[in-house]
Amino acid sequence: MTGSVTIVGIGPGDDNLITPEVQAAIDQATDVVGYIPYVERITAREGLTKHASDNRVEIDRSRHALEMASEGKKVVVVSSGDPGVFAMAAAVLEAVEHGEPDWRNLDIQVLPGITAMLAASAACGAPLGHDFCAINLSDNMKPWELIEKRLRLAAEADFAMAFYNPRSKSRPEGFGKAVKTLQEACSDNRPMIFARNVSRPDQTIRIVPLPDVTEDMADMRTVVLLGSSTTRIIERDGAPLIYTPRSVAG
Amino acid sequence: MTGSVTIVGIGPGDDNLITPEVQAAIDQATDVVGYIPYVERITAREGLTKHASDNRVEIDRSRHALEMASEGKKVVVVSSGDPGVFAMAAAVLEAVEHGEPDWRNLDIQVLPGITAMLAASAACGAPLGHDFCAINLSDNMKPWELIEKRLRLAAEADFAMAFYNPRSKSRPEGFGKAVKTLQEACSDNRPMIFARNVSRPDQTIRIVPLPDVTEDMADMRTVVLLGSSTTRIIERDGAPLIYTPRSVAG
Repeated sequence: MTGSVTIVGIGPGDDNLITPEVQAAIDQATDVVGYIPYVERITAREGLTKHASDNRVEIDRSRHALEMASEGKKVVVVSSGDPGVFAMAAAVLEAVEHGEPDWRNLDIQVLPGITAMLAASAACGAPLGHDFCAINLSDNMKPWELIEKRLRLAAEADFAMAFYNPRSKSRPEGFGKAVKTLQEACSDNRPMIFARNVSRPDQTIRIVPLPDVTEDMADMRTVVLLGSSTTRIIERDGAPLIYTPRSVAG
Repeated sequence: MTGSVTIVGIGPGDDNLITPEVQAAIDQATDVVGYIPYVERITAREGLTKHASDNRVEIDRSRHALEMASEGKKVVVVSSGDPGVFAMAAAVLEAVEHGEPDWRNLDIQVLPGITAMLAASAACGAPLGHDFCAINLSDNMKPWELIEKRLRLAAEADFAMAFYNPRSKSRPEGFGKAVKTLQEACSDNRPMIFARNVSRPDQTIRIVPLPDVTEDMADMRTVVLLGSSTTRIIERDGAPLIYTPRSVAG
């Protein structure tokens, strides 16, 4: 039996956003590895062993997955959203690069999923419908100065933006600092979108003009989007539609 | 009967990348609207009328979809990839904003899909595993100067990058100009990735150091990715793995 590591994205929460490709990989796995709430989403069955671990142990979890694959197991590593966007694919590959030489020649595959920013964008229209960037606001893994530099340059480029990990209990001040930087860099009232528990039954979408945003509007269950200078809001009965036009005047 | 317009993403090519949510919307549609090759991917059945149209008529197609919904049809607008990333969602919403007042209160939904850059990223590892941006290189809808400005700022921000619509027959010179700008702005040999026909049986992935890139390496069936200054290549038997680490040293 030849082992494998397949790193899959199970989307932001709704099982109807799991691709058939990912579901097939889960159905064929002997072992599933991941952060506790994501492993909980995988249906138990005979022949499948679940290995749930806490947050912030991504490299240990990756090494465990690679060790089991070396022993012949068919291991699936589950990520929320897409595994390649601020998730487990980069962690597993980091463990491969710095780990046992044999791990390089394991059967390693990454299967894409619906990432939170695109589910959030779809939930309110198409705010990322033109050039955009995605920034992880956590400064666990990079200096705050780099985040601030990227925010200023992204504003100067007039990108729409998506922000992952905006605010946690351990660093509650980060999102407020990011908002202040963006308010300074963008002198208009473009909309910021707070999509919480996106695709879940308790999903909420809140649209706030950037000058009115306060740091308490986001938490770790929120993905935050920011329009560009051209983003439009279509008012109507019920929730508005919001989109960034495909064209920019010359 | 109440009409609706549902704008769905059918992924980059492999039907195993279509979410169950999107498949259900297609199964319930009375009418499917879209660009010819995407409408061809939808299985014919009794009760479903297909309306295929050529490229570059996105607003006409959107108006047609909205008119049919006004008449009570359940219309699905199909996009390749994700409908919110350089695709039909922004076109339909533009048609709503500037069209009949009644259209605003139609049942309009956007359902996310697997966008080409994330399928391409997964196919070679996780090159978009850290902060990144997505830029449409077509200058049909925006001035070239804006594209060039965004490329320079994205390089300064040290984003990984994804490029859609890199090169067409009608503007063969655009990709070469973009590459020249990037070669000037990035003074290292970070990898550029050419993912052609991603997720299809004839998919090809080519990894080229940026200084060696030439304009003929991309066409309209290619999505192009560029690593950041920290992107790593893991050599091994067979195709290398490529990833952008989650952390940046302080």
